[in-house]
Amino acid sequence: MDDDLAALTARLEAFADERDWAQFHTPKNLVMALSGEVGELTAEFQWLTAAQSAAVMTDQDHADRVRAEIGDVMIYLTRLAGVLGIDLVAAANAKLTDSARRYPPDRVRGDATKAAKGQPTES
Amino acid sequence: MDDDLAALTARLEAFADERDWAQFHTPKNLVMALSGEVGELTAEFQWLTAAQSAAVMTDQDHADRVRAEIGDVMIYLTRLAGVLGIDLVAAANAKLTDSARRYPPDRVRGDATKAAKGQPTES
Amino acid sequence: MDDDLAALTARLEAFADERDWAQFHTPKNLVMALSGEVGELTAEFQWLTAAQSAAVMTDQDHADRVRAEIGDVMIYLTRLAGVLGIDLVAAANAKLTDSARRYPPDRVRGDATKAAKGQPTES
Amino acid sequence: MDDDLAALTARLEAFADERDWAQFHTPKNLVMALSGEVGELTAEFQWLTAAQSAAVMTDQDHADRVRAEIGDVMIYLTRLAGVLGIDLVAAANAKLTDSARRYPPDRVRGDATKAAKGQPTES
Repeated sequence: MDDDLAALTARLEAFADERDWAQFHTPKNLVMALSGEVGELTAEFQWLTAAQSAAVMTDQDHADRVRAEIGDVMIYLTRLAGVLGIDLVAAANAKLTDSARRYPPDRVRGDATKAAKGQPTES
Repeated sequence: MDDDLAALTARLEAFADERDWAQFHTPKNLVMALSGEVGELTAEFQWLTAAQSAAVMTDQDHADRVRAEIGDVMIYLTRLAGVLGIDLVAAANAKLTDSARRYPPDRVRGDATKAAKGQPTES
Repeated sequence: MDDDLAALTARLEAFADERDWAQFHTPKNLVMALSGEVGELTAEFQWLTAAQSAAVMTDQDHADRVRAEIGDVMIYLTRLAGVLGIDLVAAANAKLTDSARRYPPDRVRGDATKAAKGQPTES
Repeated sequence: MDDDLAALTARLEAFADERDWAQFHTPKNLVMALSGEVGELTAEFQWLTAAQSAAVMTDQDHADRVRAEIGDVMIYLTRLAGVLGIDLVAAANAKLTDSARRYPPDRVRGDATKAAKGQPTES
């Protein structure tokens, strides 16, 4: 794991320990907290068109709220991974390698249906 | 941003470009994809007790599924942040600094109600 | 079988009792199960454009999957409400009455920013 | 569909039409709104133990918040179903009939692993 993410992981552990909050940080609770924050992030985008969503960072207020919610999501994902002993970047890379194999470019280029998760390409 | 996370961000961009999938990666769609993956992660924990959730990584099959789902969540969070131009670790650190100020240890130690998001401590 | 909501609530209770599954149906677990199913529903829509989403029921396969996921969401929401002793329709009507008061038509007509949850209209 | 739920569906349609908000109520947007509300409901339970969650309706403030969030979830689920032309109770009953067949009581009684969605019983 790289230093920045390792430092954040350590900072989150210290933050919880200083407040005696580790007792609430069971993986079950942390998954719920992550889910709640993704819900707040979703609310920032729910009424926007695709084009408006692409321009969201050009409006100061909206950009600040989106950055804040993404920060909260990253906090709980990183804390959950820390408690479970999972390396976030390694886990992502492993899944991406798997996806690259299952969705070779010449089979899925530009195709939304293949972009749908879990739909294998024909052999 | 650190090198591993920057490399993952770049790898995700290349993965999408090779498949001409960037057209589907509007922030709105990516937030939905992130939400869908968090749903799958949630399903791994929904019937477990807090204690069973704490031991989830001791069972090989369950550990593999949890690591895979966390990998998928990290993929979409990193891709979303890349498309929006947001530094994930910086955003998390900024929110954590804010939380450390709003929830000083001597006010919230061991208290679940204060641990609830958004509940400020009394002055 | 009749389609009444009270009958569904009773049917869900019997389904759980017959399998001795009520022990797993704590409100906490049911909220997670609901969240997981909403994630599956979200996955059906994540790569669609707004227009494609509006036409989703015209494709047999897609319509069947959407109906199935909505069925699962309704199952867990109804079971959760049953366990908590909450009347779903009454709770929805109460919130709607509140929203009708906070968002009078002449203040918010056609305005997406006011359509965003929690944004009060100016006095 | 029973009268109460049909009346709520009609009330939600009128509420949106009066405000010229139907334009924002694409199925895609409504699924996101539903997801956001389930996130808020999740936040009410994330730090509670299973026992605390079972007692949540005994505390006036907590009960009011839970009822309000469940009302919001029901609002968006009912509106989504209305826009898609799906009967919520019928869809739930259809899935429950399917689950009753896949999880016969004598095969799954008291077993949490079988309670996990998608895990079929052995033949």
